[in-house]
Amino acid sequence: MCLQKDSLLFTATRHTTELTFRMLYSLARFKCSLLQVLKGASRTPRPITVPRFGHQTLAAALPAVGGSPGVRQARALDHERLLQVQWDDGACSFYPFTWLRDNCQCPLCTLQSAQARSILLTDLDVHTGVDQVRVTDSNKVSITWPDQHNSEFEPDWLKKRCFSPEARQARQEELFLNERDFWDSGLQIPTLDFKEVLHDDKAALDWLMTLRRLGIVYLKGAPVEQGQVARLSQRIGYLRLTFYGHTWQVQDKPMANNIAYTSGKLSLHTDYPALHHPPGVQFLHCLQQAQQGGESEVVDGFHVAEFLRREHPDAFNTLTSLRVDFTDTGSDYCDFSVQSKNRIIDVDNEGRVVRINYNNATRDSVLDLPLDQVQSFYSSLKTFVELMDQPENVVTYRMEPGDLVTFDNWRLLHGRKRYVSHSSLRHLEGAYLDWDEVMSRLRILRKAVHGDS
Amino acid sequence: MCLQKDSLLFTATRHTTELTFRMLYSLARFKCSLLQVLKGASRTPRPITVPRFGHQTLAAALPAVGGSPGVRQARALDHERLLQVQWDDGACSFYPFTWLRDNCQCPLCTLQSAQARSILLTDLDVHTGVDQVRVTDSNKVSITWPDQHNSEFEPDWLKKRCFSPEARQARQEELFLNERDFWDSGLQIPTLDFKEVLHDDKAALDWLMTLRRLGIVYLKGAPVEQGQVARLSQRIGYLRLTFYGHTWQVQDKPMANNIAYTSGKLSLHTDYPALHHPPGVQFLHCLQQAQQGGESEVVDGFHVAEFLRREHPDAFNTLTSLRVDFTDTGSDYCDFSVQSKNRIIDVDNEGRVVRINYNNATRDSVLDLPLDQVQSFYSSLKTFVELMDQPENVVTYRMEPGDLVTFDNWRLLHGRKRYVSHSSLRHLEGAYLDWDEVMSRLRILRKAVHGDS
Repeated sequence: MCLQKDSLLFTATRHTTELTFRMLYSLARFKCSLLQVLKGASRTPRPITVPRFGHQTLAAALPAVGGSPGVRQARALDHERLLQVQWDDGACSFYPFTWLRDNCQCPLCTLQSAQARSILLTDLDVHTGVDQVRVTDSNKVSITWPDQHNSEFEPDWLKKRCFSPEARQARQEELFLNERDFWDSGLQIPTLDFKEVLHDDKAALDWLMTLRRLGIVYLKGAPVEQGQVARLSQRIGYLRLTFYGHTWQVQDKPMANNIAYTSGKLSLHTDYPALHHPPGVQFLHCLQQAQQGGESEVVDGFHVAEFLRREHPDAFNTLTSLRVDFTDTGSDYCDFSVQSKNRIIDVDNEGRVVRINYNNATRDSVLDLPLDQVQSFYSSLKTFVELMDQPENVVTYRMEPGDLVTFDNWRLLHGRKRYVSHSSLRHLEGAYLDWDEVMSRLRILRKAVHGDS
Repeated sequence: MCLQKDSLLFTATRHTTELTFRMLYSLARFKCSLLQVLKGASRTPRPITVPRFGHQTLAAALPAVGGSPGVRQARALDHERLLQVQWDDGACSFYPFTWLRDNCQCPLCTLQSAQARSILLTDLDVHTGVDQVRVTDSNKVSITWPDQHNSEFEPDWLKKRCFSPEARQARQEELFLNERDFWDSGLQIPTLDFKEVLHDDKAALDWLMTLRRLGIVYLKGAPVEQGQVARLSQRIGYLRLTFYGHTWQVQDKPMANNIAYTSGKLSLHTDYPALHHPPGVQFLHCLQQAQQGGESEVVDGFHVAEFLRREHPDAFNTLTSLRVDFTDTGSDYCDFSVQSKNRIIDVDNEGRVVRINYNNATRDSVLDLPLDQVQSFYSSLKTFVELMDQPENVVTYRMEPGDLVTFDNWRLLHGRKRYVSHSSLRHLEGAYLDWDEVMSRLRILRKAVHGDS
C-alpha cells in the first residue's frame, strides 16, 4: 500500500514568496522582531505530527480551549497599523487594524444569533488608526477606535486567527481537511457498521474523517431494502437531487438512459462530469448481486494523477489545462439536456489535484479544441486511462446484499465488470451528496465528539 | 442604459495563439489550403449579428437542419491523419481520424438510447489510420477502418462539429449562451406574466433566454400564497435544497440565523458564497410588502467588475486572485457549519468574469492571507463595493404582493433597504436553482419552440 502526503508532495509547488517568508520566519522565530511584525509569528512552532488516519490533524497545532496562553501585553504599532499581542509564553502575533475593526464582535457590529457581520463595508474605514489599546482585567484585548467605538477580543479568538503562516496553515487544515492519504491496489478498504454510523456520533465521525482522508469507506449490515442511502444521507443532512432522481436504481433496464443501466462493463469513471459541479460524494447500496460478474473496481484518481504528473508531465499539463465538453440528454426525474466543460484533472492555485472529471460515456462528440491540439488530448487521456487501469492501482471488491459503499466522487474513479443475471436482477441503489454538506456534518460531529478546537 | 458585449470586451484577452490562427484563417478562408488543413475552415463566414435580446444567438451562424450543404467530396489526408470534407458550397472542414473513430455512431460504439459513447478508450487506437473513405448514395461520409469496422457520419452532424474557430465558437455559444448584455441604472427590468411562463413554452423560453443574457426577469401576476417559487422551479425541473430549506421565508425573525431575516438594510451581496458552488439562480416572490422601506436594489456585478478591471486593474487583480474564507453556521433545515474559500470575482481561463462571490455578512473573520496582503485586500474590496453602490449602477424597485423576481445569483448583487412593518410582516419566499438545470430546460424549450438547431 502506497501512502503519500500531498502536503509533502506539493511543497515544491508553493509560492516562492510564501517559502521565503517561511525561511525568514524560521530564522526569527524566537524574537518579536520587525521581521515578525511583517509576517506574524508564534514563539515555539510545535512539531506537527499527522497520523495516517484518525481524527487528529494539523489543527492539533492550534491551542485547545483553556490551554492557550493568555495575553501578556498588547500594543499598537501605529506606523505599521498593526496590533502586536505578546502572549504569556513569549510568542507574538500581529493583527492589522483594519481587520480588527472589520471583525469587531460587539452586538452593533455582529448579529450574534447568526454569528454574521452586520457592520457594512461602506462604514469601514480601511485606513483606520486606533485611539487606545489595553488588556482588560479579564485578559481581553480592548481597542478604542478614533470614533470612540470600542471592541474587545478574547485571547483564544485572536490566537486562532493569528496571521503567521503556521497558524494559518493549521487553521485551514482544521477547516477543510485537505490532507489526503493516497493508495493503490494494496488498500484494505476501511469497513464500519452501518447501524453504528447511524446511531453513534463517534462512529459517524470516524466514517467521515476516513472518507475525507482516504476517499472510500465500506459500511456493512444495512437492511436489504430500498431507502438506506436516503437514510444515510439524512445522517449528514440531505442528499443532492439530480436528473436521475433523489436516489437512483442501478439495474439493467430496457432503453437505458445511462450506460450504467445495462449489464455491460463500466470502465473507470467519475459520475456526472456533465454537471459543472459534479456530486462530491456517492453512496451505493447493494440490494441484489449478479450471479456472475458485476464486481466493483475503484482507483485513487489523485494517486494516479500524481504519477502522471511525475512520469508524463506533458500529458498532465494537457489534461489540467484543456476543457472538454460533456453531454447528457434523456429523461428520468424529468427530461434533461445537460452540457458542461470540465478539465479531466482539476488543480487548485497551488497545483494540488482537487477533482477528476472523467466519464468516457458522456464525453461529448463536440470537441472544442483547435485541430492541432486534438491528438495531444487523445494521447494524454489514453496515457492517464492506461495508468488507472494498471492492476497495481485497482482495488476490486464484490458487493453483497446489505453492503453500502461510500466514496469521494471527486477523487475516486469507479467501474464495474460486466455481469450476467439469470433469475434475479442485479440491483444497487445510489445517491449523491456534495462535499460542502458532508464537511458541515463532519465539523459538527467533531465538535460534538471532541469539543470545540 | 449601457450595453456592452463581453465578446467584444474580451477580444484583447483571448489567447494570442487563437488570435494568430484567426488571422491566418481570415487570409485563407476561400481556399482549401494546407493552412486550412491545420485549423479547419468554412468558406464563407457569415456576418454574425447578435441581437440585444431575444432568441437568436451566434448559433444562427450554424447551418439549420435541412439548410446545410451536402458533401461534395471526402478524402483522407493520411499524412496529417485528417479527413477532408469539401461541402457543396465549396467550403472545407477537417476532422482528425482519432476523433472520428472515437465518435463512431454505430450501435456497437454508441448506446443509442442514452446517446452515450460505449466504445472504451482502452479499445481506441489513438494513432489509427483509415482504410477507405467514400461518400454514400445518401450523402453520408463512410469510413472503413483498418480492422474493417465501418463508421458512417451524417453531413449535418459533421458540419456542426467542424473544428474551425468560427464553427467552434458558434457551437459553444449555442450550447452555453455565454454572451451577456451589461447594464446600469437605466435598465428597464424585462417583465413577463407568471402564468404565461408556466403554461406557454414560447414565454418560458423568452424568460430563460433573457434571464441568461440580462441576468434578471420580473414576473407579475403570481398568486399571493406560498408555493409559487416551487411551482416555478418545477417548470424548469427542480429547485436546489440548501441548509435554509427547499424554499425559505424572508421575514424579520427572532434569533435570526441569517442577516436577511431581520428588518435591517441588506447591502449589495450575492447569496451563499459560503458554499463552494453558490446557487446560480434565485427566485424571490413577494407575499407581503413592508409599510415603509424594504425596496429592492440590484446591480450588474459583471458590468461593475469590468469597470473595476479598466479603472482599477490592481484591485481587479487582487479580487480575482485572493481566495477569501466565508462561513455560515446555525440551524434551519438542519444544523450546519459551512465554510468555503472563494474569490470575490471569478474569471475563467479566457479572463471573462463568470461569477461574483460576495456577502459581507458571511465573510469569515478567518482571513487566510499573509499580513502584507491584508491591506490591499481591504482597499480593493472597498473600491469594488463603492463602485457597485454608485447610483448610476443601481436599479431600485419595490416588490408588491404577487411579484416574483428571478435573477442570476452568479452575476447580480442584490440588496434591500431597511424597513418598518406595523400591522403585517413583510414576507418574501425564495428558492434557488443551479445554472446547469436552468440551461438544460432552456435547451429543451429552444428545441421545442424553434426545432433542433
